[in-house]
Amino acid sequence: MNLYKIFENLRNKRPLIQNITNYVTSNDCANIFFFFLASPVMTDDPKDSKDIAYISDGLTINIGTLNEKTIDSMISAGIVSNKLEHPIVLDPVGVGASSLRTQTVNRIIENLRVTVIRGNVSEIRFLANGSDRPNGVDSSDKNEICYENVELFKKLSSRLGTIIVATSTVDIITDGNKVCFCKNGSSYMEKCQLSSVISAFISSNDLTFDATVAAVCSYGICGEIAKSRMSKADGNSSYRNYIIDAMFNLTPEILEKEAKYEIR
Amino acid sequence: MNLYKIFENLRNKRPLIQNITNYVTSNDCANIFFFFLASPVMTDDPKDSKDIAYISDGLTINIGTLNEKTIDSMISAGIVSNKLEHPIVLDPVGVGASSLRTQTVNRIIENLRVTVIRGNVSEIRFLANGSDRPNGVDSSDKNEICYENVELFKKLSSRLGTIIVATSTVDIITDGNKVCFCKNGSSYMEKCQLSSVISAFISSNDLTFDATVAAVCSYGICGEIAKSRMSKADGNSSYRNYIIDAMFNLTPEILEKEAKYEIR
Amino acid sequence: MNLYKIFENLRNKRPLIQNITNYVTSNDCANIFFFFLASPVMTDDPKDSKDIAYISDGLTINIGTLNEKTIDSMISAGIVSNKLEHPIVLDPVGVGASSLRTQTVNRIIENLRVTVIRGNVSEIRFLANGSDRPNGVDSSDKNEICYENVELFKKLSSRLGTIIVATSTVDIITDGNKVCFCKNGSSYMEKCQLSSVISAFISSNDLTFDATVAAVCSYGICGEIAKSRMSKADGNSSYRNYIIDAMFNLTPEILEKEAKYEIR
Repeated sequence: MNLYKIFENLRNKRPLIQNITNYVTSNDCANIFFFFLASPVMTDDPKDSKDIAYISDGLTINIGTLNEKTIDSMISAGIVSNKLEHPIVLDPVGVGASSLRTQTVNRIIENLRVTVIRGNVSEIRFLANGSDRPNGVDSSDKNEICYENVELFKKLSSRLGTIIVATSTVDIITDGNKVCFCKNGSSYMEKCQLSSVISAFISSNDLTFDATVAAVCSYGICGEIAKSRMSKADGNSSYRNYIIDAMFNLTPEILEKEAKYEIR
Repeated sequence: MNLYKIFENLRNKRPLIQNITNYVTSNDCANIFFFFLASPVMTDDPKDSKDIAYISDGLTINIGTLNEKTIDSMISAGIVSNKLEHPIVLDPVGVGASSLRTQTVNRIIENLRVTVIRGNVSEIRFLANGSDRPNGVDSSDKNEICYENVELFKKLSSRLGTIIVATSTVDIITDGNKVCFCKNGSSYMEKCQLSSVISAFISSNDLTFDATVAAVCSYGICGEIAKSRMSKADGNSSYRNYIIDAMFNLTPEILEKEAKYEIR
Repeated sequence: MNLYKIFENLRNKRPLIQNITNYVTSNDCANIFFFFLASPVMTDDPKDSKDIAYISDGLTINIGTLNEKTIDSMISAGIVSNKLEHPIVLDPVGVGASSLRTQTVNRIIENLRVTVIRGNVSEIRFLANGSDRPNGVDSSDKNEICYENVELFKKLSSRLGTIIVATSTVDIITDGNKVCFCKNGSSYMEKCQLSSVISAFISSNDLTFDATVAAVCSYGICGEIAKSRMSKADGNSSYRNYIIDAMFNLTPEILEKEAKYEIR
């Protein structure tokens, strides 16, 4: 896997990524993107999102703070993205925690070809077997690799025709055949920003699976760099700043050297 | 008052708190919660907020950036919270500054049993006598304890059956009988995040008044820690980071040692 | 131009500024304002925005994340602001990138007297000749002064009766007659916060053109201060914090000493 080249493709393309996202993370996502070799556009209204999809290179859909108008925007933008064969990344925040969230994810999956779904382990498990209620929206399974999950996620990926990224201590990436375990990252990373980072990588590269792995490793490496900067008085706010700073300073050399992944 | 035990109860429960909040503070609130021994869920749509209320331990309602849909979400989630006897904290941002804000606060108070109302002195004065127009949404009365206010707030608390927290240089907390003055904090704290912190504390403890005092002291202590980290070039943005960092690093030992409160 | 006096007028007035803005920047704008000698009010609903306009000193309209309700809020608040002769600053984020954005800007310009329009060079070019599609919402023309643009922007300013601020490496400010080039700033500034800073300056001063120049220089100086604080590991997130910190610590002395502008 040529991570160096994948990163360079991103840097050369500097894609424009549309984010229809919850307002909780919108600030951070915009920050990551502003310098991270990609430009962000945030949209909220269906008319706006449709037009913006025509000039964007990729689309990130995050269901973190849904309302009806936002759902229409997601579908409108997604239809255009599909028509133009631009990638779509879906972040199913809290799926299973409310009917609206579950119905929305189903509506998106049924109406759009989604390229990558990125969630935490409990969200992806819910998508896989439709019953595993997530224990808290931001919770993650902290266990080491659970091979039962790996098989479940491979089947989900094959069934949906979508790359699955389940983030936890060890991130699992699968396209139904290949499985990649990514071990970069620090113990207290929020990974809600990762979905937009994946959009940027895959909209700049033809090898979608490889570009997804590169995005996951990149974000994890930035978490490690961020953690190494933490002083005793620092906490999660400084950590959040350091991780965005690290994205800003990431190079293909660092990515290639620090990536810890294993493909099976 | 056993602040140590109150903090430990929070740490042991790690409650899930629903925030129906303005998007100005949503980012910071999510940050505070993500590690601060509590998990956040942000909602916007009435259907979503109702379902999420069933799996949450507490609810924070902030009227900072209202629209009609958000108001319906507040009521929907609040009805479920009342049914489950989960606490509700109301932050009446800018009440009195517009009819919509005033009407919304009245609608909430009439339709829901609110556990705690947290505002700055001018907002709480407006609630108490219905006429004191706040001089700016974020303004606070910077005077030392005003005993006229204390009596006013006690009456308001008794009339509404709600704990009142009026934040200023000295924070006033009252349940209509007891009054607590909390003197922690630094001169330029924004206290908009405090409402969510109170939700987390009271949803993890049976002694609601004591848990409210613990939350107010905790947040004030973090302001003091934040201020002590400020370099000459630092300003309000670094301060905001430091305060969130301090919440992340807070321990029951620090809370017990540094809390400055007086109950009458 | 008496920058010292302009800054002092701001400090003495401490205006209340209503921001109807996209949620991407709302957090940062609130932060800048909270201490920067001005108070913020964010609104979303037309009923709220109208009432708040009566108690505010100025209005900032940012079309970054439009929806229909927000557009109505902009018009409602703008009508009141016009009636009270309070200044309006329009930030036409991504105009030309979607019909909704372009239509909204046209609707605002036709229905309201806008005091200042602040955009990047490609946005202002689109407004001037109605066809220059911006190449990405946050993109800026990085060239040195383009005199073709200067003439274009002077005509636009005269036609609309509005001060134009086009930000780039060298910022161009014109009222149709005078042109000011401002050379403060660092290479990677986001200038989306600047619109609210202009609102604060012009709502505190009678000399609108001079106050606009003072605002642009102030923000640019803060970018320079921020850049000088950057360590090797720092990136755009630390930069964003440093710039807000610098606004907090700005004084009339620093503004007068560091402003680099040229009027023709």
